[in-house]
Amino acid sequence: LKIYLDCYPCLLGQAIRAARLSGADETQQYAILRDTLALLQNLPSGANPPVIGNQVHEIVRNLVGTQDPFREIKEASTQQALALYPKLKELVQRSEDPLAMAIRISIAGNIIDFAVNDPSADLWETVERVIQQPYAIDDTEALKAQLKKVDQVLFLADNAGETVFDRVLIETLPRPVTYVVKGGPIVNDATMKDALAAGLHRCAALTTNGAQATGTILSVCSESFRVKFDQAPVVIAKGQANFETLSNAGAKIFCLLQVKCPVIGQDLDVPVGSIIARQSTCTDTILP
Amino acid sequence: LKIYLDCYPCLLGQAIRAARLSGADETQQYAILRDTLALLQNLPSGANPPVIGNQVHEIVRNLVGTQDPFREIKEASTQQALALYPKLKELVQRSEDPLAMAIRISIAGNIIDFAVNDPSADLWETVERVIQQPYAIDDTEALKAQLKKVDQVLFLADNAGETVFDRVLIETLPRPVTYVVKGGPIVNDATMKDALAAGLHRCAALTTNGAQATGTILSVCSESFRVKFDQAPVVIAKGQANFETLSNAGAKIFCLLQVKCPVIGQDLDVPVGSIIARQSTCTDTILP
Repeated sequence: LKIYLDCYPCLLGQAIRAARLSGADETQQYAILRDTLALLQNLPSGANPPVIGNQVHEIVRNLVGTQDPFREIKEASTQQALALYPKLKELVQRSEDPLAMAIRISIAGNIIDFAVNDPSADLWETVERVIQQPYAIDDTEALKAQLKKVDQVLFLADNAGETVFDRVLIETLPRPVTYVVKGGPIVNDATMKDALAAGLHRCAALTTNGAQATGTILSVCSESFRVKFDQAPVVIAKGQANFETLSNAGAKIFCLLQVKCPVIGQDLDVPVGSIIARQSTCTDTILP
Repeated sequence: LKIYLDCYPCLLGQAIRAARLSGADETQQYAILRDTLALLQNLPSGANPPVIGNQVHEIVRNLVGTQDPFREIKEASTQQALALYPKLKELVQRSEDPLAMAIRISIAGNIIDFAVNDPSADLWETVERVIQQPYAIDDTEALKAQLKKVDQVLFLADNAGETVFDRVLIETLPRPVTYVVKGGPIVNDATMKDALAAGLHRCAALTTNGAQATGTILSVCSESFRVKFDQAPVVIAKGQANFETLSNAGAKIFCLLQVKCPVIGQDLDVPVGSIIARQSTCTDTILP
């Protein structure tokens, strides 16, 4: 996904929210604002929103010095999600198609997203909505077919708390899973610590992508992750930032997400609030 | 009201919406974006949001050449409001306190506001809400007391369509009214043409403030308007931009508005959606 006009006010808003969460004082907040305005004025054409978002958060980190401003939010999200874990498991167990239900539950967890908006959304209400809602894009049959053919799955995590919903899916998948978290704290994306707190080590091999960046920007990931990514026979990629960075990075990738951003909605020609299970295309070999 | 951090993304969003409404092509849209980013980077401290907003709309006008991009929207708003006029008059006639009801109706009309958001708000629903809603700030008794003492009222209009709601109030006011519209088109603010379309000439003397700017920025208004403003014994000022520019310009001014902007809500310590009838203070003699 390339940057659109509407990304600019959103990125500016992200800078301000991150500045406040980082405990920036007013002088620092205005310095962050000015640096972000300067960044936005000089974007290369074809810039990718998560790449720019990461630069915004780097500005905040450098000016305030807080390395992990979303730490408390992430811990609270994980605890909230863990409280639902037994009910989520029950939904899968009672379902006629447990894998289909588990995929929907993992997508429901994608409502947890502090980069895009301050979610007042109730987690359980979201689950009840998403398990009934028709897909706006539905490649789940292709995903299920792939899962039957392969011997392992690479699973790219998104946010802390959403991890618990992913765990329910991973425990339902018929193949061993490697669960990939971020290499360092970036907004509320899951790191190794967050994955452990959500109990992912009980159902998957854990690893990091070596990058302190949202989405999966292969050029800033570690060499060892890139090898895993290249060798993976199938990749499940969660959330908007992974979609934005991997939507045309090859047909072995399946993006599971809720559309929370109007620009992504427009790009996919679906309304905000849609649920998506989309097989990536092959326009580019490596993005961005 | 001074500019806050949260005004920056909002102003950038206003630039983008105005660019599109003006029929700017993609190249022009990006030029508008870049010029707006440059403007925002170099704001004087203590800048007033409507003043900056006007500069944003000037950028759009200069780059696209469209003088009145909101023309069709304004005409549609006026027609929608006129369709409600008989029902609004009936509300006043049936009320035990017609003046109080007419003030509320005028405030209800302030929901029409394309500078702040694309209103999907239903007009009649808004009327039904506002005629029952408790005031967050209520200086209507002071306003009523002033109205008894004076021989005329200066009434500062806000948006096209809202004019019809103002007309209902003016027809209920016990004193002759001069209704002031903008000197040239700026977002969806009412101009002379819009006031005539709404029938304001049937109940008030019509004049303009000589400025192509939202709110009432006295320094850019005509000399003849400034004289009227100085001599007026009481001033009713509609909407957020008039509040932002006149909230501390003297106790003869009464601002009637709905709070649609979080920054104004924070400044007044009231929630978004509040209805306000507020007597201005005297901190500054002339603003900005």
